[in-house]
Amino acid sequence: MPSTQDAGKCMWARNLIYSRGYPRPVAGKLYLIGLGLNDEKDITLRGIDAIKDCDSVFAELYTSVLSESAIARLEAMTGKKIELLGREDVEGEKRIIEKADGGKAALLVAGDPMAATTHISLRLAAIDRGIETVIIHNSSVITAAAGALGLQHYKFGRTTSIAFPSGSFLPESAYDVLLENRKSGLHTLLLLDLRPDERMFMSANDGMAILLGIEKKRNGGAFTGRTTACVVACLGSEKPLTKAASVEQLLKEDFGPPPHSIVVPGKLHFMEEEALRKISGLPQ
Amino acid sequence: MPSTQDAGKCMWARNLIYSRGYPRPVAGKLYLIGLGLNDEKDITLRGIDAIKDCDSVFAELYTSVLSESAIARLEAMTGKKIELLGREDVEGEKRIIEKADGGKAALLVAGDPMAATTHISLRLAAIDRGIETVIIHNSSVITAAAGALGLQHYKFGRTTSIAFPSGSFLPESAYDVLLENRKSGLHTLLLLDLRPDERMFMSANDGMAILLGIEKKRNGGAFTGRTTACVVACLGSEKPLTKAASVEQLLKEDFGPPPHSIVVPGKLHFMEEEALRKISGLPQ
Repeated sequence: MPSTQDAGKCMWARNLIYSRGYPRPVAGKLYLIGLGLNDEKDITLRGIDAIKDCDSVFAELYTSVLSESAIARLEAMTGKKIELLGREDVEGEKRIIEKADGGKAALLVAGDPMAATTHISLRLAAIDRGIETVIIHNSSVITAAAGALGLQHYKFGRTTSIAFPSGSFLPESAYDVLLENRKSGLHTLLLLDLRPDERMFMSANDGMAILLGIEKKRNGGAFTGRTTACVVACLGSEKPLTKAASVEQLLKEDFGPPPHSIVVPGKLHFMEEEALRKISGLPQ
Repeated sequence: MPSTQDAGKCMWARNLIYSRGYPRPVAGKLYLIGLGLNDEKDITLRGIDAIKDCDSVFAELYTSVLSESAIARLEAMTGKKIELLGREDVEGEKRIIEKADGGKAALLVAGDPMAATTHISLRLAAIDRGIETVIIHNSSVITAAAGALGLQHYKFGRTTSIAFPSGSFLPESAYDVLLENRKSGLHTLLLLDLRPDERMFMSANDGMAILLGIEKKRNGGAFTGRTTACVVACLGSEKPLTKAASVEQLLKEDFGPPPHSIVVPGKLHFMEEEALRKISGLPQ
């Protein structure tokens, strides 16, 4: 079945729903385009086509480690100027909407464009103005970390993230989620905070130290030196790094450049255990 | 920082780990390449490069709705012959390993190549033979469904799937997961069974009917006609369909061509609720 026919079918279904009372977009188009995990080669062909279709292209790099030179190479590939937006660029959203209103604009986002909670407000603002929004999905650490380790997705509990301590305040929510998942025998993905514009990237070692600190206070047994954990780094590159061992052992390693993530496995299926041994060096 | 330098850094870290006792791949290369959600345009530039790098390319379509003509278009794009593997092709894994051993082979998989549990055994078999494995990640419904609906990932509990009833046996595991997530106020993604080689695709309506059947028996209150649920269809296409309403209302809809998935939201953040109203037509 050709792709255009597939698209036609979906369009038919969409129109059916519109006819039952959906607001129909009136003018302008906003693409939210995922750039995937690593560099400019992780964009999809659909993403390249969408950039070429636009009058104005923006990129936000403040939630990722994607480099400015990767963006420059995307500019060369597509022939479009790409404007970089900083975290402090509070006018950024407004500018994007202005360009999409009656025209075609794109925002490039590392990973999947809707995986972070940040961009839903932009999408809603566009919808409020009657602008059509199109999401070009891409890989996200949320799915990729489990796959890279050979762990099964349906055995993961909630995903959580470890934030940089703010002064003396140390949020314990990551520990709470981990504890709850462990009680149910589930795996946990722990994302690590990053602030690229301040060149701050939480390493796996930092993240583990924070969890051990909370464990010391809470004493719930969810994360000790003897807990088996996994670290993934450089996911999506030709040579990603995955390592599984006791937290004690992992703390002695240097996992190289960011971004890092931590996975704490729950109850392991034998195939998952075999994967951790063969792919990530889990000791017997 | 240029991409080659990034790769160099990651390689450095990987070599550091190898020197601490990892088995080092000796010969041959196996790429596991994700094709993303919709058609041949959802492959990444990295994926295209990998196909071009290979001597033998295989594709399995039995876990997706990807069409054979999309594969034909990938062949035209890359100049490589792509061999299709069926579900019953028990020799498929062996043939891929033979081609990768001392050579370069690729297996193309819809979505993210490691999101299904199916392909980890192939990867482990390759590692056993000293073949280097490279994963080219891509988007998966696991991440994309939440983003398309404007729901926050960290508020999802376990993902589950609804299987076709086998004779009179109706597994209730999907209901169990849903019930547990709802007790914790968490969202649930319910994937729906499909057997493309038999042209069987569970529709959202079928899935909801199965859950209502289990509810009738179990009476746990996790899924009734008054439960708010969401259906997503044609995710990743230009015109994906997302709809949020009571189960009773949703059962009256036709969501068009597969694949469909169901999301049952737990406790909604006000921004999530706004997204469901504006994007997916949730009634006030």
